[in-house]
Amino acid sequence: MAHGNTAPAYLDAPAVTQQLARFVSNHPSRGWTSAVNKEAARTFLNWLGCAIGAADHITSNSAMAAIQVLQPAAQSTVLGRKERVDIANAAFLNGISSHTFDFDDTHLKTIIHPAGPVASAILAMSEVKGKSGQELLDALVIGIDVACRVGNAMYPDHYSRGWHITGTTGTLGAAAGCARLLGLDEQRTTMALGIAASQPVGLREQFGTMTKPLHPGAAAKAGLKAALLAQNGFTASTRSLEAPRGFMQVISDKFDWNEISENLGERFEISYNSYKPFACGIVIHPSIEACTRLHAQGITAADIRDIRLKVHPLVLELTGKKEPRNGLEAKFSVFHASAVGLIFGRASEAEFADEVVARRDVETLRGKIVATAHETIAEDACELIATLADGREIGIAIEHAVGSLGRPMSDADLETKFHGLADPILGSTQTKALLNVAWETAEAKDVHQLVRLATPQSQA
Amino acid sequence: MAHGNTAPAYLDAPAVTQQLARFVSNHPSRGWTSAVNKEAARTFLNWLGCAIGAADHITSNSAMAAIQVLQPAAQSTVLGRKERVDIANAAFLNGISSHTFDFDDTHLKTIIHPAGPVASAILAMSEVKGKSGQELLDALVIGIDVACRVGNAMYPDHYSRGWHITGTTGTLGAAAGCARLLGLDEQRTTMALGIAASQPVGLREQFGTMTKPLHPGAAAKAGLKAALLAQNGFTASTRSLEAPRGFMQVISDKFDWNEISENLGERFEISYNSYKPFACGIVIHPSIEACTRLHAQGITAADIRDIRLKVHPLVLELTGKKEPRNGLEAKFSVFHASAVGLIFGRASEAEFADEVVARRDVETLRGKIVATAHETIAEDACELIATLADGREIGIAIEHAVGSLGRPMSDADLETKFHGLADPILGSTQTKALLNVAWETAEAKDVHQLVRLATPQSQA
Repeated sequence: MAHGNTAPAYLDAPAVTQQLARFVSNHPSRGWTSAVNKEAARTFLNWLGCAIGAADHITSNSAMAAIQVLQPAAQSTVLGRKERVDIANAAFLNGISSHTFDFDDTHLKTIIHPAGPVASAILAMSEVKGKSGQELLDALVIGIDVACRVGNAMYPDHYSRGWHITGTTGTLGAAAGCARLLGLDEQRTTMALGIAASQPVGLREQFGTMTKPLHPGAAAKAGLKAALLAQNGFTASTRSLEAPRGFMQVISDKFDWNEISENLGERFEISYNSYKPFACGIVIHPSIEACTRLHAQGITAADIRDIRLKVHPLVLELTGKKEPRNGLEAKFSVFHASAVGLIFGRASEAEFADEVVARRDVETLRGKIVATAHETIAEDACELIATLADGREIGIAIEHAVGSLGRPMSDADLETKFHGLADPILGSTQTKALLNVAWETAEAKDVHQLVRLATPQSQA
Repeated sequence: MAHGNTAPAYLDAPAVTQQLARFVSNHPSRGWTSAVNKEAARTFLNWLGCAIGAADHITSNSAMAAIQVLQPAAQSTVLGRKERVDIANAAFLNGISSHTFDFDDTHLKTIIHPAGPVASAILAMSEVKGKSGQELLDALVIGIDVACRVGNAMYPDHYSRGWHITGTTGTLGAAAGCARLLGLDEQRTTMALGIAASQPVGLREQFGTMTKPLHPGAAAKAGLKAALLAQNGFTASTRSLEAPRGFMQVISDKFDWNEISENLGERFEISYNSYKPFACGIVIHPSIEACTRLHAQGITAADIRDIRLKVHPLVLELTGKKEPRNGLEAKFSVFHASAVGLIFGRASEAEFADEVVARRDVETLRGKIVATAHETIAEDACELIATLADGREIGIAIEHAVGSLGRPMSDADLETKFHGLADPILGSTQTKALLNVAWETAEAKDVHQLVRLATPQSQA
């Protein structure tokens, strides 16, 4: 399947663009098990907390300042903030803030963060179009299915090449979700997917900068506008995904068409979504958890001579920053994340603050951690050996990190995480009310109460 | 330099992102010969006519309908129309309309249409920021230089892979032009280029659909917003173009860094820009011109038994549609374009109307044309042999088609073309006044008179 300059392109690919469009436009509302609908609610709630939590971060403030230059209409809610902006820029800003803490959901088979692009687009659209909570969840399940199936077909080659797969597939997921919400027919949905296909977003080179969270935001906006353009008669190729010069063959050297069509409408990729207990890339979580277990045993930084970690190769590839200079870079440092795991017993957003990164004890402990890559270690596992100052050795093996599919976060875990994110922005009382409304999304006649509770309310 | 899944990435690339940022932010105003400034005025004027000419096309109307859903602020002019929209969407809409007729400029070394993304972004920005005509031309020269130098570095491999190089490099060109207009320093300009680098736009699979002209529009908008984000403190990698997982290595198998840095600030790529006499892809122009010469000799469609064309291989690759079904597809048919060249003696927008595509005599003549690809034929050349019904053979060789660098269109040619495009929208009197103002862009204190004349005025 690989191709280069000389190898022939794959000329007779199946019509996956139209297959997906048919699914998006025709699949019945709630046409899946209640477990799938529940996972949609969990995905939505987790995303909502992340977006609110970073609402006042410098990344969100910077993006908002740029958008204000455009004098946007007050159409849709920016989560966690008082400003309202137009539908497309609400999708953009919420997509950015939901990924700013790197605390959002992860489709583990592809490392896609699917809610960022999809939920950001469909919530902004649902608010203006008066869509019901179940219509929102329908669009979420379907949009995520499109993004993750295309991701499955290209992963890992596409990601290895340097694309941030969340943004590239997210544009398609956002377009699918919005096409569904707008009730586009199969033909117009094909056009929406095609328009979106021409706008893949995201380079891995940006990891550690504000442009990483920009990727789901830009994908959300491009997908949303693709659906609006298609609704208004704009055209694209009907084979935008599979053609020799279409999306998949251009941006990937692997394209397993079966991953798109197999059990389409029967198996839903949102079922394989996961949520993070730690505010950084999923690949570091096993290492952090191992270090939090040292903390739980009463081990302190002063006790440590060195820590040796055996990790999956992606850990060093993605998060190998030995000396992070600030909080954003620290999220891409297995050394920092492990160090705070031991010192504080957790790795929430607070442990990635610039001040914590600069702390002498954290810096010293980072320098005592050595990580080595092993093909035999699974992505959700790690092995730790700590040598203490007194010569003792402690070994800890994590088989499935918390938050992995083998050990998913419970609903109560998600609520605790949500409070941690939203309480500083909304206050705990309003956050609790919002949580109750968010869990009941499937029954809501529209999303207005939800978005009202998701923004800071003036004191009565 | 090529890389695949297994080949190592190019790790020690020169810092071209920062080199370009330094050039964009520091190069003096009008720091080039008067010939370069004149070419900038020609490029701008040609682009302006194209954008106005397609202002009422179904593609522009469809895009405008979608944008109106967002209730944009009335900040900037949409060329040839009465509606005003926000800066970013003005860049988007003007970028679309300027490429809708495929009649815009071409940087022949790369087949980039550079004005679409760059001029669309900087005119919308200049209008709101009160920039002078020379500041606009500075941003045009510099933005086009960035886009085309990056294009030179990747062409032809990047294009062969399936990318529409106008959109991919155009995002960078638009970001550079807007960073220049906003007066961003070297560091913020580096950020603007980086943010833009994460948003390459455009698949060749879309050729023949409305999404082809969407590419420069989406690139213009993404680049403009990248500059606004950078101005407001948003960050990106400082090595977004050259890093192993940066723009160039991800989207191309060729990256000749020298093409970016060599004679930067001394040689200007806008000098190699060209303008089209025919309303379709540049690669078909030699074939059309050969057929217009048959027309000039008094040969009619009824006289033809068959026409054999020897053409550059790209002609069939890009424009091999044997039986176009509508005007948009006809632009990608060397057979249609050649047929109307013979029948009408020209190939302006009118000859690509759906009604002309459906005409029996045009269809019959298309069927009598055979084109074969030859590596030995240059891109701006072709050889034609027509066999007439009476057995006579006529041979015509085009060495350099009109509009090529070897035979550029004169200023008078550009004015004639401009009238052909703008008269139906603005009337010939206003078009003439606009032409006079457009030629004087370098002396204008701002662009307000120009954009006023570029929109339909209510009768006094």
